[in-house]
Amino acid sequence: MNFKKISRIALFTALAAMPIMAQDAESGAHLKVSLDTVWTLIAAFLVFFMQAGFAMVESGFTRAKNASNIMMKNLMDFSFGSIAFWVVGFGLMFGTSLGGFIGSDSFFLIDGIPGTNDWPFAFFLFQTVFAATAATIVSGAMAERTKFVSYLVYSVIISAVIYPIFGHWAWGSLFGKGKGWLEALGFIDFAGSTVVHSIGGWAALAGAIVLGPRIGKYTADGRAKAIPGHNLPIAALGVFILWFGWFGFNPGSTTAGTNLSIGRIAVTTNMAAAAGAVTAMFFSWMILKKPDPSMALNGVLAGLVAITAPCAAVSPMSAVIIGGIAGILVVASVLFIDKVLKVDDPVGAVSVHGVCGAFGTISAGLFAEASYSGGVNGLLFGGGFNQLGVQLAGAGSAFAWSFGLCLLLFFIIKSTIGLRVKPEEEIQGLDIGEHGLEAYNGFQIFTTEN
Amino acid sequence: MNFKKISRIALFTALAAMPIMAQDAESGAHLKVSLDTVWTLIAAFLVFFMQAGFAMVESGFTRAKNASNIMMKNLMDFSFGSIAFWVVGFGLMFGTSLGGFIGSDSFFLIDGIPGTNDWPFAFFLFQTVFAATAATIVSGAMAERTKFVSYLVYSVIISAVIYPIFGHWAWGSLFGKGKGWLEALGFIDFAGSTVVHSIGGWAALAGAIVLGPRIGKYTADGRAKAIPGHNLPIAALGVFILWFGWFGFNPGSTTAGTNLSIGRIAVTTNMAAAAGAVTAMFFSWMILKKPDPSMALNGVLAGLVAITAPCAAVSPMSAVIIGGIAGILVVASVLFIDKVLKVDDPVGAVSVHGVCGAFGTISAGLFAEASYSGGVNGLLFGGGFNQLGVQLAGAGSAFAWSFGLCLLLFFIIKSTIGLRVKPEEEIQGLDIGEHGLEAYNGFQIFTTEN
Amino acid sequence: MNFKKISRIALFTALAAMPIMAQDAESGAHLKVSLDTVWTLIAAFLVFFMQAGFAMVESGFTRAKNASNIMMKNLMDFSFGSIAFWVVGFGLMFGTSLGGFIGSDSFFLIDGIPGTNDWPFAFFLFQTVFAATAATIVSGAMAERTKFVSYLVYSVIISAVIYPIFGHWAWGSLFGKGKGWLEALGFIDFAGSTVVHSIGGWAALAGAIVLGPRIGKYTADGRAKAIPGHNLPIAALGVFILWFGWFGFNPGSTTAGTNLSIGRIAVTTNMAAAAGAVTAMFFSWMILKKPDPSMALNGVLAGLVAITAPCAAVSPMSAVIIGGIAGILVVASVLFIDKVLKVDDPVGAVSVHGVCGAFGTISAGLFAEASYSGGVNGLLFGGGFNQLGVQLAGAGSAFAWSFGLCLLLFFIIKSTIGLRVKPEEEIQGLDIGEHGLEAYNGFQIFTTEN
Repeated sequence: MNFKKISRIALFTALAAMPIMAQDAESGAHLKVSLDTVWTLIAAFLVFFMQAGFAMVESGFTRAKNASNIMMKNLMDFSFGSIAFWVVGFGLMFGTSLGGFIGSDSFFLIDGIPGTNDWPFAFFLFQTVFAATAATIVSGAMAERTKFVSYLVYSVIISAVIYPIFGHWAWGSLFGKGKGWLEALGFIDFAGSTVVHSIGGWAALAGAIVLGPRIGKYTADGRAKAIPGHNLPIAALGVFILWFGWFGFNPGSTTAGTNLSIGRIAVTTNMAAAAGAVTAMFFSWMILKKPDPSMALNGVLAGLVAITAPCAAVSPMSAVIIGGIAGILVVASVLFIDKVLKVDDPVGAVSVHGVCGAFGTISAGLFAEASYSGGVNGLLFGGGFNQLGVQLAGAGSAFAWSFGLCLLLFFIIKSTIGLRVKPEEEIQGLDIGEHGLEAYNGFQIFTTEN
Repeated sequence: MNFKKISRIALFTALAAMPIMAQDAESGAHLKVSLDTVWTLIAAFLVFFMQAGFAMVESGFTRAKNASNIMMKNLMDFSFGSIAFWVVGFGLMFGTSLGGFIGSDSFFLIDGIPGTNDWPFAFFLFQTVFAATAATIVSGAMAERTKFVSYLVYSVIISAVIYPIFGHWAWGSLFGKGKGWLEALGFIDFAGSTVVHSIGGWAALAGAIVLGPRIGKYTADGRAKAIPGHNLPIAALGVFILWFGWFGFNPGSTTAGTNLSIGRIAVTTNMAAAAGAVTAMFFSWMILKKPDPSMALNGVLAGLVAITAPCAAVSPMSAVIIGGIAGILVVASVLFIDKVLKVDDPVGAVSVHGVCGAFGTISAGLFAEASYSGGVNGLLFGGGFNQLGVQLAGAGSAFAWSFGLCLLLFFIIKSTIGLRVKPEEEIQGLDIGEHGLEAYNGFQIFTTEN
Repeated sequence: MNFKKISRIALFTALAAMPIMAQDAESGAHLKVSLDTVWTLIAAFLVFFMQAGFAMVESGFTRAKNASNIMMKNLMDFSFGSIAFWVVGFGLMFGTSLGGFIGSDSFFLIDGIPGTNDWPFAFFLFQTVFAATAATIVSGAMAERTKFVSYLVYSVIISAVIYPIFGHWAWGSLFGKGKGWLEALGFIDFAGSTVVHSIGGWAALAGAIVLGPRIGKYTADGRAKAIPGHNLPIAALGVFILWFGWFGFNPGSTTAGTNLSIGRIAVTTNMAAAAGAVTAMFFSWMILKKPDPSMALNGVLAGLVAITAPCAAVSPMSAVIIGGIAGILVVASVLFIDKVLKVDDPVGAVSVHGVCGAFGTISAGLFAEASYSGGVNGLLFGGGFNQLGVQLAGAGSAFAWSFGLCLLLFFIIKSTIGLRVKPEEEIQGLDIGEHGLEAYNGFQIFTTEN
């Protein structure tokens, strides 16, 4: 093996890193790129940590007998995803654009990386942790019954191909190598309500449909039964971790600490999350007669997902309204999908990420204000239907792309390597069946059909 | 609804954010405000994450049957608190001062916000997460028996009114709109031993008294019985999270990354926490014959709470002494409150936050050194009794304000909507009674009276 | 007690902090030191948080009956370690060098601290959290049978003496007070594969040997029995926390945010961790017939430990290779130590930190590239055997120093205060025996011999 060649693969880094070294480290230019790099990295670290949050939420809301499997899935989708995104995803997303549809270079971080400093690496890491987020969303909706090997296959495909190509449409220009068709239309999705969350959420919907419900989820006459999660404290911890990480996700999407909208973005993010928790709690209290913790927790996530697109374009007041609507929407959607559509989504991933992601994207067309958004007003601020139309186009194309492609993907997997574990294994739990151990060794746990 | 009007509500943000955009992003002025904003935001994120720490500590130290209720309370006090502080609290605390007693504008983040950049938003977020901390402290002392709806009511009142008004007295000038009466006296409370922790701790004491002890806590002849917590690992995780978050709480209280005391403040914070753990462990070992994990964990928190006021005014050596005393004090106080006062505080919140908060505040009058504190020496460094007197006045007024007002508040709640769940519900657990679910579904758990 | 004297003990801080105050806060020099301080502090906070990760991993991989003891150990080694490192460790490591072998001043942070700003405090905190990491590694290998008081003794000695002296050899010059002998040779250990991890790992090996295996670990005929951990979700959470914290550990080791290699270091760190997870999973799948979560989790840590030395000197591609090899190595090593050497290391600490630390250190001699490393090429990039020889010398001397000294230390402890709890206590669990409580009160847990 020629290691000299491998060296060249990352050659740009040397070219990129060196010139700045010679500069005065106290110059304004050096300090600016340093601060932008520091900010982008810290934001990336926070978004990375969201993987722990997803793992905790997903396992907390499902049964003890599958907890190890869920940890394994979350760990491995990030690990495979990091490598796949480096090999191919980043290039498809941010490489030189072919007609606004797909990137065509920068694979393995080689060739044509713009800039003469280290910020591109920080940007790359930030994008890597985003890609892994899209993939991990899917695992929640398909929890407790999916074959582990099939999970690995589709999660890699999502991180490496499905997510990055759509990402190119909306964000391709961020690396300076040509514009995606959606952003050319003026699509607003600041931090990824659509690009990350809806793409993940609609993939999750496709997966849950193809997979079918868990054994015991629906009675013979079609009535939905609740299958309670096994560990509410870790689910809540997971939501706190996600909220914490979202402060990297949204404000970090400036990828620049010298962009002075970061303070306002952090505030809109927090207000929407808080409002989502409040409305989801009250709405669940009204409908279910008690303030339901799992609904309140999902309300937080709903608010966060919804504000992700418009976070930089709206006022704190609008953020409260957007988050508040999302909190109600997520409760209604969870109940609708569970009881009317009869699609079994154990953690509510489709409602949180798909539905609220679409709503948040559309909300940017309603609530955007020129003073924040760089000139665009939404419908409610006198901007007419223009931006709203673009937002609908973006949300709609995400649904078509992700749901359509993933439906196909899951059918192919189902009819080749298989998508679902055997019924005996599902009843016994995937921890033993797929991984040969128990999550809570020594504890007395009742493992019934559900 | 007139959305144009809502827009105006946050108009200042546009006015604030725009001018700087035109500036050279590589200028010293722009870089300074950027770095200050980045630092303040990251500190705010860390303090936000303390909510997860409080949730874990409180649930870990109490029983499994109430764990969901505790998650819900911690989630909702932050969510309601964020909104209440935005609506009214921030204005009462930092608005134009009426005679040093109360702020009078800046509600909903409108009008008269000084500055022409984005740092005010970062400052607002930092203050929001502080307000929520004060409120969440109370929940620990009142755990396992408080009605959920009553909890919501009083936690909003604390975040929105009780905390901010006292905060105005001590910190009102931080936003440049007039000075509080305590700070006019020269009161030192850098990061809130009194403002945040004692206010929370004395409110907690009032709550625990009005509420009365948990069923089974005291025998017929008045002997205190231990009611062990259900999950020490998550309690310990919570303490680690709180320690981690405190690095935002204390050094972040410069609200400026260009303030070069942040390094020293981080060191004094860490030393005091470490010393508190060590002395609490040894003291519990002496008294209880074994090194008690819950005492050692509370020792960390005691050290952190105590150093919060003097963190910027003392040397690392003094920090070790302050933290070490706090570690002993918290053990003594927990035992005294439990066995002598017979007030049932399930997690030791009154001792940690009230008692050690007051001690830490007073310690600034003993250990302050002019070279750190900007000119003030404490009693032990030749400053005489002057500063000590001011510190005692601050600590005393916090007790009078918070304990007095909260006693009234809890009596009003008790005699209207009621403060306590029914005995049957308390025995069965609040998770089922208040929220209709169990925290650990599928696990065999023994739910006895305690 | 003369408090004036105590004041002088930290006098340098006043000298250090004051001059910069007078400077223009918007100057390039002030902004540079501010950004470096902010970065170093945030990195230190992240590394601090790794303590929570270690606590979760270690307790998750062991039995419920010892979970409180493990929390206590992790809490107290950090607390004692913080104080011991301040008293003596920092001075031995970074004080004025005596012949490259040992530092000789700067105890208690007094005298001769270079610089006129606050960065030294940030640097001190960063080094403190590193020292505590080395100590905490040991606790995993000695879990479930070590006397608590003996644990305190040896963990202080490691933080205060064994770690810092070796640290002086490799990193002594970082504080500008003379060079260690290993760094004079050109030893590359950027963030401590050897200095932190191998030192900890070989101490752990010595401890596990002297202590002997847990009761029931080996059958009468010498066959190793698996003793499964009690809580895989918290073990996984711990690994996520460690991965998160490692973004402080490695990129933070620049101790300067204006050093523009931080982006690339973060990327190499992430790639190696991901690759380690992937190869460990596949290798365990091959050997054990199922993809084993505990092996995959250890694969992450293996990749992280291995990349810690070469993270700043290699390309992302090389990082993938290094992490990938470490993932295989850790699985092989865990099985070898368990089944062939018959040393009982409950969490695999020796394999992760000792073996992969040594491998990572050596890998810098293979994969270093001049463009990243500041001029040094490894064997595979045309640099010949030179650097490789130095790396082997460093890894070898760490083994000799730490394993040798700790063997002696543990024998001394064993023959004086004793190293191991009584068999009855081991069977019942250390939580009750050492600390008088249970970790999971109210849960039905089966406490058998294993």
